[in-house]
Amino acid sequence: MDFKQIDKFAKEMIFEAGKRIRDAFSYDLVIETKSGANDLVTNIDRQTEVFFIEKIKAFDPTHKIIGEEGMGENVNSLDGPVWIIDPIDGTMNFVKQHRHFMITIGFFVDGIGKLGYIFDVMREDLFYAIEGEGAWYNDSRLRKLQPLNIEEAVIGINASWVTPNKKINHEKIIDLVNTVRGTRSYGSAAMEIAFVVSGKLDAYISMRLAPWDIGGGTVIAKEVGAIATNLKGEHFDFLSQDTFIIANPSIHQLILDNYIEEI
Amino acid sequence: MDFKQIDKFAKEMIFEAGKRIRDAFSYDLVIETKSGANDLVTNIDRQTEVFFIEKIKAFDPTHKIIGEEGMGENVNSLDGPVWIIDPIDGTMNFVKQHRHFMITIGFFVDGIGKLGYIFDVMREDLFYAIEGEGAWYNDSRLRKLQPLNIEEAVIGINASWVTPNKKINHEKIIDLVNTVRGTRSYGSAAMEIAFVVSGKLDAYISMRLAPWDIGGGTVIAKEVGAIATNLKGEHFDFLSQDTFIIANPSIHQLILDNYIEEI
Repeated sequence: MDFKQIDKFAKEMIFEAGKRIRDAFSYDLVIETKSGANDLVTNIDRQTEVFFIEKIKAFDPTHKIIGEEGMGENVNSLDGPVWIIDPIDGTMNFVKQHRHFMITIGFFVDGIGKLGYIFDVMREDLFYAIEGEGAWYNDSRLRKLQPLNIEEAVIGINASWVTPNKKINHEKIIDLVNTVRGTRSYGSAAMEIAFVVSGKLDAYISMRLAPWDIGGGTVIAKEVGAIATNLKGEHFDFLSQDTFIIANPSIHQLILDNYIEEI
Repeated sequence: MDFKQIDKFAKEMIFEAGKRIRDAFSYDLVIETKSGANDLVTNIDRQTEVFFIEKIKAFDPTHKIIGEEGMGENVNSLDGPVWIIDPIDGTMNFVKQHRHFMITIGFFVDGIGKLGYIFDVMREDLFYAIEGEGAWYNDSRLRKLQPLNIEEAVIGINASWVTPNKKINHEKIIDLVNTVRGTRSYGSAAMEIAFVVSGKLDAYISMRLAPWDIGGGTVIAKEVGAIATNLKGEHFDFLSQDTFIIANPSIHQLILDNYIEEI
């Protein structure tokens, strides 16, 4: 399989989708609620997924596609070549802020991440990686992450996980928040993952993510030495929702050991 | 006093300072610790404040200046014309992320905010206002904030205020976090204020801010109808540190009444 050729195809597709989304801001957004107030989705979100599906099927009809909006077929295994796509990660930001939302795409073969992309649509900033070849932020190569102490770390975590919840012992998260140098929350998992792989954050934790939130990001992570697992320290389950942590390698296990206690 | 002329002067000064900061990223940053790990300050921060002081003194030597880095004179009253300056708000972002930091400046006369600026240095995005004339985001006029319900609100709040602390009853903040649609945290008070005045966030709360963090923002707030006070609902004390909330007018009092209990 010619990954250089597939990478070129993927980038062209992403840049074109980004332009279509930016152009669409000149029209009114039609917003509907998918599952409650926290989960807005727009027509543009769906149209963008359909755009990706059509492009990929024209490129190679044997490739499978897992997409957030479910506009494609049902995929029950990661055998063969599989695209994992989130056309707009950070839909609330998309609707309310018109920034801080990402296109993110992973290309997997037999469950192994081969190509990964996180594209900040409004900034036109691309984070990407090719397995074994390295990772880039636009034209600059991303460096391997450098070790640091937990007290120096700035981590991405949503305030809701600091409150009592059904997933983890929030008292330990309080300890974590009070130990690190600072916390951030951007409302887009892909954005926070892009920040971790480029050293702008040192970890990002979430109690419930889907494969399309992280597919592209995990490929980039591997190339810069970031560790991405579920909160048990195991491989993230790419066929369902799971917990998630991505972190600088010097603090990944330490956070799991000292600050994460699943309920 | 010719505020149009002072506005023109202020913008030129801010754009020039922004360019100097962007250029400085080609050099290594010399970082020192001001008061603990959470308060990094760089040479560029100080140099930028000195740049503003020299510009203002050349423009009108009778104007007083309050700056974060304390490079100017001691100012003990808001009588007459006073500039309130933060050369780099979000120093941790500045050092670690090379984005998400703001120049923010307010121009006050006898304690009344006349001109306000928040400049996203890396995006080259300017939020600004002239008292009584309106507010702008670059060339676009900012609209008055539209009413919304607390359940629809996205608010800026740092996770540390959701943990037990000496300022407020964190149990009520937990209620707030679980009531609103979402929370964000960007690590720059001025950025979060800029987001509130432009409707990208609906409120921003902090337990400890200084005059230079909010001076410019409060002038912009007034023009779009955002309410900015301390957590008692009183005027923020511009001569010392204070608590702070800025919010959409439809939820400002509701947040104070239902979710803020100072200890």
